[in-house]
Amino acid sequence: MAKNILLLNGPNLNLLGTREPEVYGSTSLSDVEQAARVQATAAGARLVHFQSNHEGALIDRIHAAKTEGIDAIVINPGGLTHTSVALRDALTGVAIRFVEIHISNIHQREAFRHHSYLSEVAVGVICGLGVDGYRAAVDFAIKKL
Amino acid sequence: MAKNILLLNGPNLNLLGTREPEVYGSTSLSDVEQAARVQATAAGARLVHFQSNHEGALIDRIHAAKTEGIDAIVINPGGLTHTSVALRDALTGVAIRFVEIHISNIHQREAFRHHSYLSEVAVGVICGLGVDGYRAAVDFAIKKL
Amino acid sequence: MAKNILLLNGPNLNLLGTREPEVYGSTSLSDVEQAARVQATAAGARLVHFQSNHEGALIDRIHAAKTEGIDAIVINPGGLTHTSVALRDALTGVAIRFVEIHISNIHQREAFRHHSYLSEVAVGVICGLGVDGYRAAVDFAIKKL
Amino acid sequence: MAKNILLLNGPNLNLLGTREPEVYGSTSLSDVEQAARVQATAAGARLVHFQSNHEGALIDRIHAAKTEGIDAIVINPGGLTHTSVALRDALTGVAIRFVEIHISNIHQREAFRHHSYLSEVAVGVICGLGVDGYRAAVDFAIKKL
Amino acid sequence: MAKNILLLNGPNLNLLGTREPEVYGSTSLSDVEQAARVQATAAGARLVHFQSNHEGALIDRIHAAKTEGIDAIVINPGGLTHTSVALRDALTGVAIRFVEIHISNIHQREAFRHHSYLSEVAVGVICGLGVDGYRAAVDFAIKKL
Amino acid sequence: MAKNILLLNGPNLNLLGTREPEVYGSTSLSDVEQAARVQATAAGARLVHFQSNHEGALIDRIHAAKTEGIDAIVINPGGLTHTSVALRDALTGVAIRFVEIHISNIHQREAFRHHSYLSEVAVGVICGLGVDGYRAAVDFAIKKL
Amino acid sequence: MAKNILLLNGPNLNLLGTREPEVYGSTSLSDVEQAARVQATAAGARLVHFQSNHEGALIDRIHAAKTEGIDAIVINPGGLTHTSVALRDALTGVAIRFVEIHISNIHQREAFRHHSYLSEVAVGVICGLGVDGYRAAVDFAIKKL
Amino acid sequence: MAKNILLLNGPNLNLLGTREPEVYGSTSLSDVEQAARVQATAAGARLVHFQSNHEGALIDRIHAAKTEGIDAIVINPGGLTHTSVALRDALTGVAIRFVEIHISNIHQREAFRHHSYLSEVAVGVICGLGVDGYRAAVDFAIKKL
Amino acid sequence: MAKNILLLNGPNLNLLGTREPEVYGSTSLSDVEQAARVQATAAGARLVHFQSNHEGALIDRIHAAKTEGIDAIVINPGGLTHTSVALRDALTGVAIRFVEIHISNIHQREAFRHHSYLSEVAVGVICGLGVDGYRAAVDFAIKKL
Amino acid sequence: MAKNILLLNGPNLNLLGTREPEVYGSTSLSDVEQAARVQATAAGARLVHFQSNHEGALIDRIHAAKTEGIDAIVINPGGLTHTSVALRDALTGVAIRFVEIHISNIHQREAFRHHSYLSEVAVGVICGLGVDGYRAAVDFAIKKL
Amino acid sequence: MAKNILLLNGPNLNLLGTREPEVYGSTSLSDVEQAARVQATAAGARLVHFQSNHEGALIDRIHAAKTEGIDAIVINPGGLTHTSVALRDALTGVAIRFVEIHISNIHQREAFRHHSYLSEVAVGVICGLGVDGYRAAVDFAIKKL
Amino acid sequence: MAKNILLLNGPNLNLLGTREPEVYGSTSLSDVEQAARVQATAAGARLVHFQSNHEGALIDRIHAAKTEGIDAIVINPGGLTHTSVALRDALTGVAIRFVEIHISNIHQREAFRHHSYLSEVAVGVICGLGVDGYRAAVDFAIKKL
Repeated sequence: MAKNILLLNGPNLNLLGTREPEVYGSTSLSDVEQAARVQATAAGARLVHFQSNHEGALIDRIHAAKTEGIDAIVINPGGLTHTSVALRDALTGVAIRFVEIHISNIHQREAFRHHSYLSEVAVGVICGLGVDGYRAAVDFAIKKL
Repeated sequence: MAKNILLLNGPNLNLLGTREPEVYGSTSLSDVEQAARVQATAAGARLVHFQSNHEGALIDRIHAAKTEGIDAIVINPGGLTHTSVALRDALTGVAIRFVEIHISNIHQREAFRHHSYLSEVAVGVICGLGVDGYRAAVDFAIKKL
Repeated sequence: MAKNILLLNGPNLNLLGTREPEVYGSTSLSDVEQAARVQATAAGARLVHFQSNHEGALIDRIHAAKTEGIDAIVINPGGLTHTSVALRDALTGVAIRFVEIHISNIHQREAFRHHSYLSEVAVGVICGLGVDGYRAAVDFAIKKL
Repeated sequence: MAKNILLLNGPNLNLLGTREPEVYGSTSLSDVEQAARVQATAAGARLVHFQSNHEGALIDRIHAAKTEGIDAIVINPGGLTHTSVALRDALTGVAIRFVEIHISNIHQREAFRHHSYLSEVAVGVICGLGVDGYRAAVDFAIKKL
Repeated sequence: MAKNILLLNGPNLNLLGTREPEVYGSTSLSDVEQAARVQATAAGARLVHFQSNHEGALIDRIHAAKTEGIDAIVINPGGLTHTSVALRDALTGVAIRFVEIHISNIHQREAFRHHSYLSEVAVGVICGLGVDGYRAAVDFAIKKL
Repeated sequence: MAKNILLLNGPNLNLLGTREPEVYGSTSLSDVEQAARVQATAAGARLVHFQSNHEGALIDRIHAAKTEGIDAIVINPGGLTHTSVALRDALTGVAIRFVEIHISNIHQREAFRHHSYLSEVAVGVICGLGVDGYRAAVDFAIKKL
Repeated sequence: MAKNILLLNGPNLNLLGTREPEVYGSTSLSDVEQAARVQATAAGARLVHFQSNHEGALIDRIHAAKTEGIDAIVINPGGLTHTSVALRDALTGVAIRFVEIHISNIHQREAFRHHSYLSEVAVGVICGLGVDGYRAAVDFAIKKL
Repeated sequence: MAKNILLLNGPNLNLLGTREPEVYGSTSLSDVEQAARVQATAAGARLVHFQSNHEGALIDRIHAAKTEGIDAIVINPGGLTHTSVALRDALTGVAIRFVEIHISNIHQREAFRHHSYLSEVAVGVICGLGVDGYRAAVDFAIKKL
Repeated sequence: MAKNILLLNGPNLNLLGTREPEVYGSTSLSDVEQAARVQATAAGARLVHFQSNHEGALIDRIHAAKTEGIDAIVINPGGLTHTSVALRDALTGVAIRFVEIHISNIHQREAFRHHSYLSEVAVGVICGLGVDGYRAAVDFAIKKL
Repeated sequence: MAKNILLLNGPNLNLLGTREPEVYGSTSLSDVEQAARVQATAAGARLVHFQSNHEGALIDRIHAAKTEGIDAIVINPGGLTHTSVALRDALTGVAIRFVEIHISNIHQREAFRHHSYLSEVAVGVICGLGVDGYRAAVDFAIKKL
Repeated sequence: MAKNILLLNGPNLNLLGTREPEVYGSTSLSDVEQAARVQATAAGARLVHFQSNHEGALIDRIHAAKTEGIDAIVINPGGLTHTSVALRDALTGVAIRFVEIHISNIHQREAFRHHSYLSEVAVGVICGLGVDGYRAAVDFAIKKL
Repeated sequence: MAKNILLLNGPNLNLLGTREPEVYGSTSLSDVEQAARVQATAAGARLVHFQSNHEGALIDRIHAAKTEGIDAIVINPGGLTHTSVALRDALTGVAIRFVEIHISNIHQREAFRHHSYLSEVAVGVICGLGVDGYRAAVDFAIKKL
């Protein structure tokens, strides 16, 4: 049966392509989402996506994923990476395996960006590969989660 | 006059009964809410309840509680326990006394769960008694807050 | 068969009702112990109690509890809460489940009172409910431990 | 051309004038907003304002500010000051210069209020001047940002 | 009666206008002092000023302020901000209310500049507004201290 | 009426005069106690003394002091200085003012000896004056406590 | 011109497939190296590989890479990740861009594995994807470094 | 002349053989004491032993050892290892050389068990060898202390 | 030969009797100095005194003490206690033994007042005895330094 | 079948007998190795030994031990104790149980020597018994590993 | 044109040759200054020198250096090394490059001497070479600053 | 007799002149070594040199130095400065006095470069003087070690 993937993006990722291009590159979020959908379809899987600047909306979306039969999540939690226990609890609460991805290399940035509440419960983490990181994450989610 | 109690539940507590049952047990949130209403009524009090995965919605609800004449709050803040100064400020801002409750024993879990922004301003804290903790908290709220 | 509960109180709790009443209230320790006995009897259980200012005496009492067939312990460890590994080891050594209780809300007091060596091995913890906390703890011990 | 200023207030600032008046004074938020609009108009600028208890709504508002041609932001982030990386990222993401303002002197309060995620990326910070701080901040925003 | 203001500047502020202009701007200290005097006079107040590179001389000046009937102090303590308990004690010792001001945004600079011994006992703190910060501080001192 | 003083010595102070004389000198504990009694009598006061290696026995003795009408305590808590919250609670529990004394200068020794649980609640602290510290402490207790 | 990739593996990675298979899986290192060579060739690139348990040998190899015209490095530094400044200096010294890869999710393991001396100077980091991480890293190195 | 050894065991070691056998094994304390006596006699030495759950009683016993002419001590301080400065002071106070022994490997257990107040003043430390550790310690005490 | 004592007071102690009397009492510094001179004369010693708000002046005075044949120093370093390595170096540099005295109990005040750069090199430390502490310190200096 | 033991010594242990004899004693490493071989043979076991100043060589030797059928390792890791994660990984990678031994009491030395990367994964640890520690470790390895 | 060097010495360096000779040697400060002048002259440069125990005087001197056309500074800041941000700001404020020198090896002394506020902005640092360090520093200043 | 000096360079210093010239300058290592030999010969001493990227090889070389009669060592430990206890032990093990040298000013670089395991046991430390630091170190070694 086709694998169902959910691609989640957190706060400020809607600015992708417009915000600090020297850090995040110039591809837009809808470019990323479209590319991911195409990649999934090509691999015989299905991919839905969601972005929000609201922690609560992301949590609601994760809860809904359980009912929809989502098999794996690829998530870029944005600034919530470093501050949201509730987002972590949502992911462990629905027990769907996920890969965490960051466009920039968070280890090269401010000290508060070096810790992620999600990494301890993620299957794996990718950072610094730019928007290519999404492709690698989606590829792994389709094949191995 | 009858005492008015507000029972608040934060992010992911809507998953109660489905999420990590070895940690949180199998009673659902609506079981808990219903039991609390019955307990309050039996004691001649009134109890309303609210759950949200949105920090802002919880804050809005606490602000509203002031206008409604709520006398005491029983709150399980979920993952916001450890990260939300705004929730703490909402509770001190309306100056309604409250009891904090956690279903699991947070002292046995990850280090980041050992600190609560709310405990310093709560009247009391109960943890680790499972869903029975709600009963003890509501009982205390009715009799002593 | 009737459940056997041991109510333990640590250093300085013999001063209860005389010491810093604005923090601890005015009920005496023997009031608390008597009320707990009555509560247990009413619930078809038996409750014995012990208070000491000596860490060693508390440990000896916990060891004896095992031989006596005590099913559950309710303990207010007083100042030993924050300093005694030996008391913790006594409780895990006899493998009797216990609830930890503090009359005041330790999270509102000095920083050194925020950590308890016992909480990590307790079933649950109650604090800040005043002497009502004993009633909630004994109730839980009778029903769930 | 007239300068466009956005005045943002975060969680619980809607309680202004009702909440802990010994800390925050008795002027209401709408008094503050009205005074700021008048002040801006008098200086030949325009000022719009927004308050929300929702982190996500504040972020959405900041994103919108970019499209609207807002030149400068004056923000009192409330409790999010100390916990929100996402709010910081929103402000740097739209690259609009801003002044951070707190009504009370946050350095005299709890230790967790001494650090602000926003100060490192703000142009300047004002605290402890009561609601007069808004006037000073708006004045600076009009003249120098 | 006319309000008396003392404007104090600590070590290295005599270099203002010559030192690291990209951080501190190009206005000289005597420009700042002159502008503050004019501003005070215009508001019906009196303002005296003093600068020294000697901690002891600043303390002596603060002690003298008490005898002279100074009503409020505006102080930029320079590098002593982060290291001088004695300066703090001088200010609390004479019990004259004061506003602390920094030309640059100290939160954007080295970590050791993030803590001020004075902020905890100041009425308010202004930083990052450049030499405009003096004007805002003097304005507040005249009207509210 | 004559003032009643209690001189308390904690663990290992019975070794005084025999233990590490280069640190503690060669006067014995009974020399110290005798000298203190004589000093008190000469000043028209009464002094009783107690030494124990048992934390619990020291706490019991402090509790008894309250009943006996002790006006002030001079205490050298020995190694319990750095580890006993229960001893601190006993002293605040009976609300008898006390002076803390150490024979050696604890600030010159191991880092763990630099913090005392008692100093925060003592009236004053004397250390490093050798056994002369007892005389100064008793003198102060008679005249000022 | 064909891109030249160096695949480096540090201490204990020669045990791959035999060591803690529940953590690292059962593929051997030579399987990994062979697969990487094939992958590079298929993409029109060249890949050489090297493994050593000696920090010095790895540094020597990195220095040699410069002379050989290596364009990019994929490195799994093993236990040296957390302890070797010299390895970091070798990589920055030759100024060849590199991707860091870990088979397991280092954020789920002991605290000392959460910090990497290399991540701050890597282009990107991949962890927790098992041996698939090598494929993603090599792919990125070929296309983007 | 025959060497005199004192074997001391601290809190909860009376539970040996009954308590957490997966951590401590199933030999009882009297088995250990008996074996140590036999081992000492065989080597031409004398060994006495003492166990207590009371810190004060252990200190009293160490003081007595000095008068009795004890040449060396083998001590398993139990939970007091990590919390008792007074016990350390007793051992240095009598100036009898000692070996510290722990049945389990304390470095594999909770972080608070990694520090011992005694190790800094012990001759040597043995841990993790199970009850065999006593034999090695006694052997060393007889031959080398 | 008569013993020579130097009584040194640091920054802000000239305010004694006027500054925060609830903390420091109402005796003036010249009362303290006069009393100390009388006390010294009565004991057949000589005492000179010096106060300054300038760290450098205090250091100069300590250097001069060496030439003058001062035998012992009693010093209340005021706010320099916590911040001046240079003052410490002056005291060790002239190798004159000294007693450190604080009027208030510094352990009950802000955390930054708990550490003294001088205590580690002082003979002894007295705090919290009010201005009586000077008498005890001078007494000790005359008799034992 | 005869048990096979590997005795490993890390950096600088080749200096044994020549280096800081007041810390390490005067027995040479080959004395230690010879004695261990004799001890093993006497107990019906076989013992091989290896020393290197190269971390990589020690890791290679540990890997080889697996192939040779070594049953237990006794290791004195020298300065690598505190810095080598790779050595730890080698030991857990081959899954051979081992005892860690230090000649001196590392708890009495510099703070950086108090932590060992190996102790957490060793069966047991012996320190401070001088070269006798080897004998105790080998004895334990033969009998219990 | 001849290079102008300023040799600055901070608090207590006037004691050189008299103070703790085992740490600082027996050469006097004027020996050092004279030798430096001779050394500079020999190299065709000019050298002036200044010592003060007053932080403010050192800052004033550094400010004056700018007007005088000093090209480079050699500074031994004494105890101010570890405590003076104002001195650091003076040096960066005048933008004269400088070498920091310490006679003793500050890394072998108390922990608080391991950090220097000046080293981060110095060109280089020399310590532990005794008074020879001055010669090396002056040599470097003449040739390279 | 002629003094024998050993010049040691650690990992990556073979890259000198090619690596990050803005940090390390453009002189090559063999330039440095040659200059040092010439300098030694001119002063009637002998100098040998060694560089390795292998910690073990450096330790072996230090051990050999003892046999060869080396009188003093000048060492630039490269990245091992911050991570190698074994290198430190080698230097103290052979008891040859040494000077530590760094080309760049390590206090201006990453925080992990601020601590050196060697500085605590070195005679002196030079940093930030570029390759001139070698000359100053060799000069000092010849004259004073």
